[in-house]
This record gives sequence, structure tokens and C-alpha cells, in this order.
Amino acid sequence: MNKNTKTKKLPTRPYKGARDFYPKDMLIRNYIFDTWKRVCKRYGFEEYDFPFIESWDLYAAKTGEEIVNKQLYWFKDRGGRKVAIRPEKTPSVARMIAARINEISKPIKWFNIGNCWRYEKPQKGRGREFFQFDCDILGVNDVAADVEVFSIPIEIMKALGATSKMFEIKISNRRLVEYFLKEIAVLQGDISSPGSQISKTAKAIDTKPKISASEFDELLKEAGLKKNQIEKINEFLNYTLDDVKKYIDKCYGAKELIEFFEIADSSGYGKYFKFSPEIMRGFDYYTGNVIEQFDLNPDNNRSMYGGGRYDDLVGLFSKEKLTGVGFAMGDITLLEFLKGWNLLPTLQTDTQIMVTVFDKDLRKKSFETAQTLRGKGINTFLYLEDDKLDKQLKYADRKGIPYVIIIGPDEVKKGKVVLRDMRKKEQKEASMSEINHGDFNIL
Amino acid sequence: MNKNTKTKKLPTRPYKGARDFYPKDMLIRNYIFDTWKRVCKRYGFEEYDFPFIESWDLYAAKTGEEIVNKQLYWFKDRGGRKVAIRPEKTPSVARMIAARINEISKPIKWFNIGNCWRYEKPQKGRGREFFQFDCDILGVNDVAADVEVFSIPIEIMKALGATSKMFEIKISNRRLVEYFLKEIAVLQGDISSPGSQISKTAKAIDTKPKISASEFDELLKEAGLKKNQIEKINEFLNYTLDDVKKYIDKCYGAKELIEFFEIADSSGYGKYFKFSPEIMRGFDYYTGNVIEQFDLNPDNNRSMYGGGRYDDLVGLFSKEKLTGVGFAMGDITLLEFLKGWNLLPTLQTDTQIMVTVFDKDLRKKSFETAQTLRGKGINTFLYLEDDKLDKQLKYADRKGIPYVIIIGPDEVKKGKVVLRDMRKKEQKEASMSEINHGDFNIL
Repeated sequence: MNKNTKTKKLPTRPYKGARDFYPKDMLIRNYIFDTWKRVCKRYGFEEYDFPFIESWDLYAAKTGEEIVNKQLYWFKDRGGRKVAIRPEKTPSVARMIAARINEISKPIKWFNIGNCWRYEKPQKGRGREFFQFDCDILGVNDVAADVEVFSIPIEIMKALGATSKMFEIKISNRRLVEYFLKEIAVLQGDISSPGSQISKTAKAIDTKPKISASEFDELLKEAGLKKNQIEKINEFLNYTLDDVKKYIDKCYGAKELIEFFEIADSSGYGKYFKFSPEIMRGFDYYTGNVIEQFDLNPDNNRSMYGGGRYDDLVGLFSKEKLTGVGFAMGDITLLEFLKGWNLLPTLQTDTQIMVTVFDKDLRKKSFETAQTLRGKGINTFLYLEDDKLDKQLKYADRKGIPYVIIIGPDEVKKGKVVLRDMRKKEQKEASMSEINHGDFNIL
Repeated sequence: MNKNTKTKKLPTRPYKGARDFYPKDMLIRNYIFDTWKRVCKRYGFEEYDFPFIESWDLYAAKTGEEIVNKQLYWFKDRGGRKVAIRPEKTPSVARMIAARINEISKPIKWFNIGNCWRYEKPQKGRGREFFQFDCDILGVNDVAADVEVFSIPIEIMKALGATSKMFEIKISNRRLVEYFLKEIAVLQGDISSPGSQISKTAKAIDTKPKISASEFDELLKEAGLKKNQIEKINEFLNYTLDDVKKYIDKCYGAKELIEFFEIADSSGYGKYFKFSPEIMRGFDYYTGNVIEQFDLNPDNNRSMYGGGRYDDLVGLFSKEKLTGVGFAMGDITLLEFLKGWNLLPTLQTDTQIMVTVFDKDLRKKSFETAQTLRGKGINTFLYLEDDKLDKQLKYADRKGIPYVIIIGPDEVKKGKVVLRDMRKKEQKEASMSEINHGDFNIL
């Protein structure tokens, strides 16, 4: 055997742009996931999941070009199938529902928490592997569904300790934008025909927050818009809800938006939403109301997640039609938000007590004690080796385990144990019958 | 646009050998995952995780040849890196621990629940994507760690309703086998040198349960063993623990095995284990005690999972040494076990109540009521659309939601609601203040 290959060590870094979760990181991840899950269940949503690998075709049609051409992880499997690692979840939800379109009762309220992969340049708030929380209501045309599903992230923010001053949710409506561009500004083409005036203008509106006013006008000029058309569009981008109301009878998008605010106001969520005509949210699925949440932290002012209504989710797979509305929130962005506002609590270990081992002869007693505690439903760590007591206590301290049980020869003779409170640094002899249900309040 | 491509629909099947989890499947998956998690926490184990994609090199060295050459999903990423999708977790745990070998306090007790991929022929109890529960104690040489970690699956079986008659755990010791082959049967080579007598014989022992006695003898003959050596090996394969005791001073493996039973017996787990000299558990990591659990169901008599002690987990990454002992259990095999013994309970939705919508005017009231219930911590599904009441009630029934609240114009006038018990098919007027904390016991 080649000595060189034997001694050369492999690197210990995880794959670029992906994260290892040590137990402390996992506590944070679980804190976020558990909050997502709890709020969804509070709303009666059901959890689903699907394979991490899908056919490449699933993403070719509707997933944005940038993702498919530059970011998608794909390869041929050993059977020659062109497969991809999920960069998003919407196509898979659509596939699953299309497969049972006539069996599944509507309304469908589903959520998923799972990882996605995109080949991106790793940076703050963005990784190649990220966990995403997807939440959708399907089969309900009514705007009430928009309000309900978009209130879930608000309840999540509240559950995580955020207030309305820390974030804002911008909302617009794709149908309204399209109506305005076509009927009022009299542009040519439509939003789904790439290269048309309307499509180019919609793209320009999408990038507007990142560019200057003159750069924006330049983009519109390049798209072939006349001066008065450009003026009209700039006027639209300053619209208030009152301006939108004028179109309520002519444009379903205006009606959707106005109704959204009526229902949101009456259920107390209105204050979180701000009508912002520049919100477009990409070009692929969305057709109705679209939202995007922003972190209001001046040091971290960025988009947190988005969502919207789509008229036809399952069209790729089925002749049936199914409308839906939902959002997808990533764990990395949310974590940045929580850190930025100092909202991450100090998370404690779930372990309630540690049992030390005095020596090999008495280890049996420690084993028995640990089993007794576990049988009572108490999360119990057994140290296993007979290291010096001091070392064992230091271990419990480092791990944040609040109580320790010490069993030496004296205790065994008396049929008792020593219970130590690690925070108070106090200890006391106790009988096992006193130690019940994790309530160690006997010190 | 080509009309043909417009009408051709994509297939709705998931990728071959992988599973969609509809909400009902997800209830089962969560039932299993939650049991795994609960028992691990009861033992004070900590959860960790790591990326789904790893460098290919990680598996090249120690993961079995069959997996790497025939089953590994691998590809080159857009940066030309040769990467693989995790087929198992041990190399990644080793990598993570090696990266912080001097910071992490021992004993390390870690668990993970996550998916792995192997390109296999899908069949009953085996898929290309499977979820695996990995559980390890690291940094403890003492056999007490073997007993503790191997008692976890027993507690899981018990928590899932299984009894000791439904499964058995076979145990042997790799050091003992090696000692016997080398010193007693006087074979040449050693277990880690492929092609040597000892390695070939170990492989033959590993396959013994699947072949006849004469086929087994034939394999040993082919490995170059003499008649008396073959007899000795057959003798060894009928060894009892008493036979093993004879070697306790000469062979550390014999001592490990005998001590294992001493500790297991004293903590009540002995009865689940059976010394079975033919248990080998592959050839890559394990060095000490090895276990394999079998389903005793005559219709489904198969291996459920395995585990063992490894002397050097982190050697690929670090000059330090770290011993460990653990097991890995898959979800598909466990599910087959539960189905085979009829142990799967009827799992209910977490949704406690549904609020119906009478009409668009009263929908606001339904919205408010749902929010009030959610605020009280009650998992509440809101129907959203004003379908016929009968249709809404049928929906609740199909979903197994136990209670429904109906709010019509009469109720609104009186400031009350109608609470319906879906199982008793009874209903009654109630005030919202009577409906508290999910205890709807007012009917």
C-alpha cells in the first residue's frame, strides 16, 4: 500500500456553500423549524414531502431561466435519466397534486420544510443548500385565501418575537400591472411573451428598486416606450390604493387587491401590508396578488421571502385547472433577520439531568438510576466512564445540563443519591422517590 | 408555439425508487421520526446534521466497494468538483468531529435523522431514497457505551408497541472472530487484507445465513482451508457464550462480548440479545462488538438494521484517534416491521376544529372566530369559501377533524356559535367563552 495515500488526510470542511449543523446550530435550526411547524398546525395546515431528486423536465418549463441554466444541480443517473436536485418546490407540489387531482378534497392547505440546492456564489444570507418553508392554499379562488396564507408568516414573525416595526410586507397585483400596461399605458404584447414591450417593462419594474430613476427611464426607452408612456408608468408606480379603486370594475386585479385589504384590515393584518406597485416577483407562476417581505433593519435591509397567487398550478401535468396562493421562506434569510434584531433566544439543551459514574463497580447503580429516570420521562444523560468527579461535573456545566446525580459508596449504603443543582452550585442527599417527573425542586 | 409541446403533459410519478409523502404518509413518517427523536432525547443525545452533498473522496476510502462502484449517486458540479449524494452518514460524522476534535467534550452522544440515496433496484423494504436514523456514542472505550447505545433501538421498539417476541438482536465480536481464525484455526492474512484466507473466510461467514452448509464448506475450500480448519470454523459457528469465556484472558474481543452481556443483563436488556458467531456486518469500519436486528415475523423475516464498535472513526481526517459505537436504522425496513406486526396506530390529524363559512357577508365572523381559537392555542382550520354547509361538513368528516363551528345569521344575532361534534353527530349552541383550550366537552 502506498504510504503517501495512507498518511494524506482528507479535508474536514463541508461542501462549499453548505453548512454543518453541530448540536448548538441544530438547536437554532429546530427552534426555527418548530416555530414554522407550530404556526402551520395552528392554522390546520397539513405537512407533505417529496423526493429530493426529480426529473430534470420538471424544472425546464416553469422554473426561471437563471436557475435552470446557471444554478440547477443536475446529472444523468446510472440508468441514463436526466435528473435534478430540487432548486424549489412548486413544480413538485404541482406534480403531487396533479397525480391525485380528483381524490384530494379542496381546500388544500399544505406546508413543507425541506432543503433545496442552487449553485450560487455563497454570501451572507445565501448558501447553496438552504432550507425552505413552503406554504400554500390550493383550490380556493377567493381572496380570503390570500389573506389567510399571507397572515401565516406574520404569526411566525410574532412567535419569533418580531414586531411590526421590524419588517414590512409589500404587496401588488400582477393582473393590475398587466391591465395598466396594456389598457392605460397602451403597451404592446403581454407579460408572458418574452421580448414584448409589456414583458420588458414588467422586467424593468422588477429591477427598479435596485437602479436609479434615470436608469429606469432608459430601460423603458430601450423597450420602445414613448415619453408619455414612460410618464404614465412612473405615475402608476406612485399609485395609492385609492388610485387603484378607480379600476375596480374594469380590472379583476384591482378588485383582488382592494378586497385583500378589506379582509386583511377586518382581521387585524392590514397594518403589516403596504401597497407597492413595483413588486413583481419574477415571471413564472404568479398571476394575481404578489407579496415580498423586507427586513427594516437599516444594517440588513433586504428581501426576506416572497409569495403570490397563481391561476394554474397543475397545467404542466394535467388538463384540470387548480388555482393557488402561497409563499416560500428560507432559513438563512430568516436567521439573518433574527440575528440582526437580536431576537435569537439562548437555547438550552433538552437534557434535564446527568448521572455520574463513581467507579466500575458502582456503574451498575448509575445505569439503573439513569434507566429509572428515563422511565419517568426525564431526559437523562449517563456519563458512562469513571472519570474524576470534577471532570464529570465540568462536562455537565459545559453542556448546560441543570442537574447532576452523584452515586458514591456512601449513598449506595443509605439507598440514596446526591442531587446537585449546577446553577446554584448546591447539593443535597435525596431518595430516588423524591426525584420525580423532572421537578428537582427539592434543593 | 408548437401545439404538440403545449398539450403534452409531464408524468406525475416521483423519481423511480423514491416516495412522495402525502399528508397521510407524512403522519406515519412523523410518528416514526418523533419516536426516534423522543427516545434519543430521553437518553440525553444531541441532534446534528450536515449537507446532503459531500465530496466524492469522502466515500472512496471506507464506504464499501459495492456502494461506491454501483450505488453511489455522483456527478461533477458546475465548478468541476467531483461530488456525491450521501449514501450513508458515518464518513460525514467523522469529518465533522475531526474538524473540532479538540473542542468537542467527550463523551459525544449524537443522533441524526436524514435521507440517504443509493442506486438500488427498488423492492419491498428497499428504496433509492430512504431516511436513516443514526445514533452514536464517541470517545468512550468502555463496553458500557455499547450497551447504552444498543439499548436505544430496544426502547424504540417498545415505544412503537413491539415486544421481545417480535424481534431478536444477534451479536458477535469482530476481534473474537479474527482471533479465532488467526490463533485457533491458524489461517493466514488478516481481516482487512482482501484476498487473504482470513478475509475470504470472514466474507464466507458473512454470507453463511444465505447459503447451504455444503456451499459454505465449498467457499472455505476455495479459500484454501484444510479439512481440520473447516471443522474448527464450523465448531466456532456453534459456540455459546460459555465457549467464548475460555478466551477472555487471551482475546480482548471475548472480554468485550462477555462484559457486554454482564452489563446488559444487569440493566434488563440481556434478554433481547443472542450471541450469534456468524454476524459480521460488512468489512469497513467495525472492529469490536457488532449487532444485527432481525424481524421474527415468519412472513417478513429479514435484517432490520445493524451497528457496531469502530476503533478509529476519524483516521481519514485526523492524526487523532477516536473510538465509537453506534447503529443506523432505516425508515422503510422499520415501516415494514410495523405493518407486518400490525403495530401502526390510526394516526389522527392535529387539527382540532374547523370553522365553516356561511356566506361572504358572514365570512368576516368566521375569520375572527378562527383567529380567536388560534390565539387560544387551538389548531383551527378555516373553510374559506361559502360552499353549501353539507359540503363543508363532509370535508371535516373526510379529514377526521373532530369538531366544527357553524356561524349563521341567527348565531351572529345572539352572539353565539353552533359547536358540532363530528363523531357523535350532535350539535349545540355555545358562547365563544365556553370554547376554551381545545376542550370542547360541552356537548
